[in-house]
Amino acid sequence: MKKMKNVHFFGSIGEKGPFKKSLLGGKGANLAEMASMGFPVPPGFTIPTTVCLEYLKNNQYPQELKAEVEKAVINIETEVSRSFGDKKNPLLISVRSGAPVSMPGMMDTILNLGLNQEIVEEMASKIENQRFPWDAYRRFLQMYGDVVLNIRDENGRDPFNDYFDSYKHDKQVKEDTELNADDLKDICFQYKKIANEHNRPIPDAPYEQLWGAISAVFKSWENERAIVYRRLNGIKYEMGTAVNVQAMVFGNLNDDSGTGVAFTRNPATGKANVYGEFLVNAQGEDVVAGIRTPLPIEKMKNFFSKAYSDLLNVCSSLEQHYKEMQDLEFTIQDKKLWMLQCRTGKRTGFAAVQIAVDLVNEGIMSKENALLSIDPEHLGHLLQPLFDPNEKQNAIRGGRLLGRGLPAGPGAATGRIVFSAQAAEDFASRGEPVILVRPETSPEDIRGMAAARGILTSRGGMTSHAALVGRQMGKVCVVGCQNARIDVVEKNLIFNERILREGNFISLDGTTGQIIDGELPTRSSEILNVLLDGYLNPEDSQVYQNYSLIMDWADDIRKLKIRTNVDQPDQARKAIAFGAEGIGLCRTEHMFFEGERIDIVREMILAENKKIRQHALDRLLPLQQNDFEQIFRVMKGKPVTIRLLDPPLHEFLPHDVSGTKKMAKIMKVSVNEIKRRIADLSEANPMLGHRGCRLGLAYPEITEMQAKALFLAAGKVNDVHPEIMVPLVGHMEELKRQKRVISNAAKEASFKGTYQIGTMIELPRAALTAGEIAKHADFFSFGTNDLTQTTFGLSRDDASSFLPDYIESGILHEDPFASLDINGVGELVSMASSKGRNSKNDLKLGVCGEHGGDPKSIMFFHQTGLDYVSCSPFRVPIARLAAAQAVLKHDGK
Amino acid sequence: MKKMKNVHFFGSIGEKGPFKKSLLGGKGANLAEMASMGFPVPPGFTIPTTVCLEYLKNNQYPQELKAEVEKAVINIETEVSRSFGDKKNPLLISVRSGAPVSMPGMMDTILNLGLNQEIVEEMASKIENQRFPWDAYRRFLQMYGDVVLNIRDENGRDPFNDYFDSYKHDKQVKEDTELNADDLKDICFQYKKIANEHNRPIPDAPYEQLWGAISAVFKSWENERAIVYRRLNGIKYEMGTAVNVQAMVFGNLNDDSGTGVAFTRNPATGKANVYGEFLVNAQGEDVVAGIRTPLPIEKMKNFFSKAYSDLLNVCSSLEQHYKEMQDLEFTIQDKKLWMLQCRTGKRTGFAAVQIAVDLVNEGIMSKENALLSIDPEHLGHLLQPLFDPNEKQNAIRGGRLLGRGLPAGPGAATGRIVFSAQAAEDFASRGEPVILVRPETSPEDIRGMAAARGILTSRGGMTSHAALVGRQMGKVCVVGCQNARIDVVEKNLIFNERILREGNFISLDGTTGQIIDGELPTRSSEILNVLLDGYLNPEDSQVYQNYSLIMDWADDIRKLKIRTNVDQPDQARKAIAFGAEGIGLCRTEHMFFEGERIDIVREMILAENKKIRQHALDRLLPLQQNDFEQIFRVMKGKPVTIRLLDPPLHEFLPHDVSGTKKMAKIMKVSVNEIKRRIADLSEANPMLGHRGCRLGLAYPEITEMQAKALFLAAGKVNDVHPEIMVPLVGHMEELKRQKRVISNAAKEASFKGTYQIGTMIELPRAALTAGEIAKHADFFSFGTNDLTQTTFGLSRDDASSFLPDYIESGILHEDPFASLDINGVGELVSMASSKGRNSKNDLKLGVCGEHGGDPKSIMFFHQTGLDYVSCSPFRVPIARLAAAQAVLKHDGK
Repeated sequence: MKKMKNVHFFGSIGEKGPFKKSLLGGKGANLAEMASMGFPVPPGFTIPTTVCLEYLKNNQYPQELKAEVEKAVINIETEVSRSFGDKKNPLLISVRSGAPVSMPGMMDTILNLGLNQEIVEEMASKIENQRFPWDAYRRFLQMYGDVVLNIRDENGRDPFNDYFDSYKHDKQVKEDTELNADDLKDICFQYKKIANEHNRPIPDAPYEQLWGAISAVFKSWENERAIVYRRLNGIKYEMGTAVNVQAMVFGNLNDDSGTGVAFTRNPATGKANVYGEFLVNAQGEDVVAGIRTPLPIEKMKNFFSKAYSDLLNVCSSLEQHYKEMQDLEFTIQDKKLWMLQCRTGKRTGFAAVQIAVDLVNEGIMSKENALLSIDPEHLGHLLQPLFDPNEKQNAIRGGRLLGRGLPAGPGAATGRIVFSAQAAEDFASRGEPVILVRPETSPEDIRGMAAARGILTSRGGMTSHAALVGRQMGKVCVVGCQNARIDVVEKNLIFNERILREGNFISLDGTTGQIIDGELPTRSSEILNVLLDGYLNPEDSQVYQNYSLIMDWADDIRKLKIRTNVDQPDQARKAIAFGAEGIGLCRTEHMFFEGERIDIVREMILAENKKIRQHALDRLLPLQQNDFEQIFRVMKGKPVTIRLLDPPLHEFLPHDVSGTKKMAKIMKVSVNEIKRRIADLSEANPMLGHRGCRLGLAYPEITEMQAKALFLAAGKVNDVHPEIMVPLVGHMEELKRQKRVISNAAKEASFKGTYQIGTMIELPRAALTAGEIAKHADFFSFGTNDLTQTTFGLSRDDASSFLPDYIESGILHEDPFASLDINGVGELVSMASSKGRNSKNDLKLGVCGEHGGDPKSIMFFHQTGLDYVSCSPFRVPIARLAAAQAVLKHDGK
Repeated sequence: MKKMKNVHFFGSIGEKGPFKKSLLGGKGANLAEMASMGFPVPPGFTIPTTVCLEYLKNNQYPQELKAEVEKAVINIETEVSRSFGDKKNPLLISVRSGAPVSMPGMMDTILNLGLNQEIVEEMASKIENQRFPWDAYRRFLQMYGDVVLNIRDENGRDPFNDYFDSYKHDKQVKEDTELNADDLKDICFQYKKIANEHNRPIPDAPYEQLWGAISAVFKSWENERAIVYRRLNGIKYEMGTAVNVQAMVFGNLNDDSGTGVAFTRNPATGKANVYGEFLVNAQGEDVVAGIRTPLPIEKMKNFFSKAYSDLLNVCSSLEQHYKEMQDLEFTIQDKKLWMLQCRTGKRTGFAAVQIAVDLVNEGIMSKENALLSIDPEHLGHLLQPLFDPNEKQNAIRGGRLLGRGLPAGPGAATGRIVFSAQAAEDFASRGEPVILVRPETSPEDIRGMAAARGILTSRGGMTSHAALVGRQMGKVCVVGCQNARIDVVEKNLIFNERILREGNFISLDGTTGQIIDGELPTRSSEILNVLLDGYLNPEDSQVYQNYSLIMDWADDIRKLKIRTNVDQPDQARKAIAFGAEGIGLCRTEHMFFEGERIDIVREMILAENKKIRQHALDRLLPLQQNDFEQIFRVMKGKPVTIRLLDPPLHEFLPHDVSGTKKMAKIMKVSVNEIKRRIADLSEANPMLGHRGCRLGLAYPEITEMQAKALFLAAGKVNDVHPEIMVPLVGHMEELKRQKRVISNAAKEASFKGTYQIGTMIELPRAALTAGEIAKHADFFSFGTNDLTQTTFGLSRDDASSFLPDYIESGILHEDPFASLDINGVGELVSMASSKGRNSKNDLKLGVCGEHGGDPKSIMFFHQTGLDYVSCSPFRVPIARLAAAQAVLKHDGK
């Protein structure tokens, strides 16, 4: 049919494609698409997004719109042989919003437009089911009064809904269906009265209704909720929304009618069967409301055999057409199937992988699109132990949900509460599952964290120490739970009234952040079994096989190398199993806490002079050497980036009386002297204090010991590629001087192999002067955690007091510690990359901050031309997939 | 004469100018200049810097150099009618280094080249004064052995000097002059023996001596001391040094000879008389050594009347020629004057100003060059009270120097030691002069600081709280004195063995950082008397008149406006007297500590809910309003930039038991509850925590109160130009939202005037996204203190543990908190300026960090196109001059 300027018609005589989502919105484009494919779509039309923007700008419609809408309504009338506003044979229509992307917060739907009292009475006079017309009218009046006219009582509440509830209460009925036609008629009269009392009468004229609804949809583009949602999701105002006007079909007309939803494949498991549910004699909202229990889709054939086979046909065709699993809404009226919606279906991680593999095998989807169809974060789900979903649901229903924190380390863990690292080790050594509960964690807690199944903190954010180390260890981790009061002295964990004590069981869902009272059964992931424990054979695990295939495809495409951040050989083994191609960050300080060596470390730090310090360093050297040797052996020829000592020295010192006494005894000085030295080392802002290479410059002997240990270790292993990384460089001269110390150590250790010396870029000044720094560096590794802290002037440790509010209120769209702030921090990364490469064109560039495991950030790192990203072992698969997606999205393959 | 390629000859037949310092070095160029003007300069030649670099690179001289040097030596021989190496009539020469800029650490001087035993004996045989030739030979051997051959004993000591001392000791004489010709002959033989024993014989052949000395000068360009000096002063290696070879003249030949130094004007006071001193029958080094007391230059006419009148003539001509006060070295041999050196003379601040004014009045110097001739920092000297220099010297000689800290606030202060702000107020209220001694200061100490004459801290750097606030108050301030142990509980101030207690007197020299035991008399500056106290009339103070004239000239030229950082009306009055054109930073938080209001502030912070907080804010509003009103009145129509609350709230809370108890009582809650709330507000890195606009976003009611107080105050004053500054903005959205609150407050206060809203740029992210932020800002004010902290990742409070070492060892050339780091922080300032102006071309740009008062930084801010700098009141005159110099140097006028 002939195209109109401002109105796009769809139906059996609809227009031809292509149907642009940017113009018609997601819903409108899909309806038009389905209609053009010949599927039964109630006829209708879409007013495109361009009209929305024009209307909002000028506060009036394009001149020709009125005529075009009227013509389109006539088209509908013709197709369904009904007439808009006609008493005898009225056409009823729906009006729905439909933006190019899904937009909660927008005005949604008005049904049954075209009804008024006269028409309803005429309908009622001709129909056996008296209840149907009055219920339809009641629904129309309620929606229109609420959504279009926005009528509210003095308390800001919807008076229609309140009246409806009070009416049911007076009649002592629970369900809407228990109200009869007379009841509904009473309610309709009362609704009209309410609207009149608010001086916003509900119009009777059908066209007045229609224009009111269309304008309300457009105006809702500017309501507060929509603005907030757009801000939070980075959606531009200039996108606009479309309006869809469509002939009504009724699933609640009679027992030959019904309604339902369907997925072309199982969205939970990915199984290749149409999956869904339906209700007989019901409207779509009845399915959603969950009042009546719907039937599984297979049962449809017993009720609507023709419609069911039509539906299966539609499912198969749509999946072939869209080359993706689809989510459909349909209605059956008088046995005939009508399609109301279709879109790409949401799914779990398990389903995503299964569907991707199947669609490729079936030749429906390309490997590239298969990779793009999987949310990389979903891969994490496949790797984590999970709570049995029914058990968890029951526990929550039973009132056992204690609170919610930030979901910092995904998975499920159940265990006994302990309040100290020592207790964690003690309980674990007795074979007890343990949840370590701390206000926050510090390097001293590492052994306790390793012993625990899960970690719960009341402070800190997604990149707090607990979250960082927890994720790296693959621990379930819930952090920053603000309604938890943790008293480590009294050993109490308090949620409002509930007081838990050491030894009590709690369960943490690290995927949702939920904290549940008592034990909950978990099951471990199949992939982990295959990769690490080995008691499950690869061929016995479909999940593993899917995962493995997806990883192969991703590896073929991606350009970024994926390394891992690990400090210990067993972590390194895990990371290699997950596909890590090297170590991007090995923090030497974590090794300092192992076993008895912390005492030697403390001696070194508290040394009054260089001689005593050197004595301690001499004893640390063989221990570090052994650490490095083990890691080199595990990494079998893969590059290993080892970072020199980074944290402020006071982090290693004892904070308790017994620790202080112990050091006084070891060092043969008074307790007060030890206290004084500890006090001397305290800092106002440790994050900006004496740390990183500033330590190595003040005490070159520390750098010397670490470098020598490293080169001696490397000398004992074949095919070893050490990359020594100097932390917190802000000035070229710092790197130059540390480099000299390191090179000397290599000579002293008679190391004959090749090695590289590079630096973290984690200070704005390093990025700004990257050209100079690059002259002395073989590689840069962006420490985006610290770079984010200094660029924002925002301490991770302190951000929890306001950062959540910033995100909640839309000042920031995302936690910049979780996903790289492209405009600010990203600008520094780009600048440093280009300045660095201009100065040295073979400069290796990588990232070792937490962002190295974040898909959105990985896209940016790929675009910026980095060589690798490095992330915690459990995020390696996610990074592999994200890196492949970056190529597909950015390089446009 | 004909130019040679590698040798520049000077003398009566010397070359014509211009003489480039870059080629000939400072000394060489000035010698050539003097010679070409016809003044008596001993003939000689300069080997230019280019040869130095070639020699150091290739380890050999240009092919033609040998012939050219020999030809130049012949020229000297011709001019002085002597012959190099000739027994009967030997030419003796000196070899001196001379880089384009003065370079301590370089090899300096070898005298009497051309002597050997044979020549000395021949000379001795013909001369009455036997001592002269042997002393000349002794000096040559000693210098050559030490400086050219670098002979050292097993302890690294100079064996010649040691032998000389032991010889005098054995002879029981104190002065060199007490040794006779035979003694000196003995010593010469022993010197040659020592050199032979070290296998480095001192050559007899004159040319061998010459080439040895030339090479030694060139090689000293690469010695450790020169390298360190270059690094510390940002001098490039590629500059190189020149060598000056010159015929010797002897001031110690007889009583018709002598030597001296002269300034064309008095370098201490600037008085327009030749000033200097001389010795009869002496060498230049005798004047420097200070063994014999030289005579004032006027006495010369009694000894050498012709030479004296020649010297006065030279002085006058050179000053006319160089158009600057000159510092000269001369020698008289047989009554004839010889000029050995001339250069621009160093002077005190008082002299600098006097000389500049006089030279302009005399028509010798342009106003522009007069402005350039004054080191802006010197103006500060004119403004500060000073110790009587003799008294101070005596005190130091008497062993009363206790230690040295960083000279953070110039001037001189004497007073009684107190260890708390309260004690400072108590002592001061009794009329006692007080020095406040604290490990470091905090806002709680402000009233105590105001009461004190001087402030001494053991921690912190040049921009610590004590330094910042101290300078702003114009207090004498010595900070970060690491050898002071301060025990505020026991009230002890300990320097090594010396223990000082509360009430003891100390004296602080804030210009040098010296700390002196006991009282020292001071005198206050004349300018201050004229400007503020008014008991000295302008016409009675030459210093004031000079200052005032210089300031007028500077104001005519400069383009940068100069504002001031003040918080209180009396500070504002002072700043205006010094020429401030507005307030660039008024910190509202300092007002919070005044009087009893701190309790209300604490109530506001500790409030459990918004209602209690609002109650406290309602009581603060009239107090703040009054503060603002007073400041507006003082500023009489000048712009006033008021910054909203910036520091973390915990800074305002009590840290002691009594304060906590008091708040518990006021707020009617338990002491434990107060403690808990205080603990909740503590932060790991307060500098990166909940502060700045983050507070205003969390508690808009605080911003609202401050803005309302400000607008209500402004409404009461005529001609008022408030500029409201939002601190610590990192994201455009923060500013946008605070702006909304401020604009609403203006409406609520019914303020009818104009006002501006802008932001600090003090976070790297703000600079990086300045384009977006500018859309919502009327002005940017660079907070370079915090910007330096975050760009370097360096806390001012913690930097003292390593920053001094960084500067000492040359990693950094300067303290980046004192002088802006142009490469790093400066890059962000430039970036933000251009992004900001691209986005809004009339965006006002200023700086309110400490760097706003630093001359070097001011040069950069001028080049970057800023509109104004803002600094503490006492630095306003310095900034006015520096801003004029920036125009003259940068804009090339």
